[in-house]
Amino acid sequence: MKITVVTGNAHKAAEVAAFFHGTAEITHIFLDLPEHRSDDVGEIARGKAGYAFEQLKRPLIVDDTGFFIDALNGFPGPYAAYVLNTIGNSGILKLMEGRENRSARFVTAIAFADENGVRVFKGTIKGWVAQAPRGEGGFGYDPIFETGEKTLAEIPLEEKSRISHRARALAAFHDWFVEKYRTP
Amino acid sequence: MKITVVTGNAHKAAEVAAFFHGTAEITHIFLDLPEHRSDDVGEIARGKAGYAFEQLKRPLIVDDTGFFIDALNGFPGPYAAYVLNTIGNSGILKLMEGRENRSARFVTAIAFADENGVRVFKGTIKGWVAQAPRGEGGFGYDPIFETGEKTLAEIPLEEKSRISHRARALAAFHDWFVEKYRTP
Repeated sequence: MKITVVTGNAHKAAEVAAFFHGTAEITHIFLDLPEHRSDDVGEIARGKAGYAFEQLKRPLIVDDTGFFIDALNGFPGPYAAYVLNTIGNSGILKLMEGRENRSARFVTAIAFADENGVRVFKGTIKGWVAQAPRGEGGFGYDPIFETGEKTLAEIPLEEKSRISHRARALAAFHDWFVEKYRTP
Repeated sequence: MKITVVTGNAHKAAEVAAFFHGTAEITHIFLDLPEHRSDDVGEIARGKAGYAFEQLKRPLIVDDTGFFIDALNGFPGPYAAYVLNTIGNSGILKLMEGRENRSARFVTAIAFADENGVRVFKGTIKGWVAQAPRGEGGFGYDPIFETGEKTLAEIPLEEKSRISHRARALAAFHDWFVEKYRTP
């Protein structure tokens, strides 16, 4: 079976291909998909997968990721990328000044669409907003997101790519897919 | 001619009807429209008007509003409503602590779609982010947005509804519409 990864990011398609090596053939296409505004990345991914399937008519996945900080009512949520590009990590740390509750989580939703409809798989990683950025690795919010003792930017890439929200969503999708399409 | 206002907010439709009294008949419908992510409210409104016209096949308008703060790289921009519901005005003021450049603007884009395509009209009001909220009127960011000496929440509603970004976009659309569809 062939699965098309709809994304503007070739690294994401490569990551999916590594997960599905020997199980499915992964191809990659970029479509600028419209979305319904929602605080739920699962619903955003579901809607976009539906639009993509209308156009492509072949099995595909679309993903969406959010960063949710409890003390900020879920902000920046599904607008994580926009917020990073405007107020950045320094803006987030400013908003968190004096906050005792620093709980936060990343959530990735992967929506798989085929002729049977759309199915959504989520992966979450829970942690805390750090007091200051730490670590040289990673990107985006990684330097200010602690899980355990370390920030995501301090965790080696190999470990990060096993424990991340994105890896967990991919694993959930992979397990379902293998169960459903295994050779009888 | 009849124009359908696509909005979840009946007050908006009433405001349009007041502008077009004697010029066009205004009706009101709610559609949950998908959108392409963009920093430009004009492009967001244009896309949504196109989707709405595909469904309704009659002359219609869709609007979108953003709040852009220069010192925050345009944040909250098109996500003004989401940001207000999460970090709120207190979050904006926190992000603006110690900032000398407090320039900001509201922009409303009104997209009119008919069988000839989509045309976008923008209205802007420029001002500054106040040091603290002032005023009892208005809603949303009005108490922290100064134009002249007053915040939008200190300006009487009648005056606000003449000078606002929304009124300016509606006036631009109205002038174009009257010119185009006047009885010869």
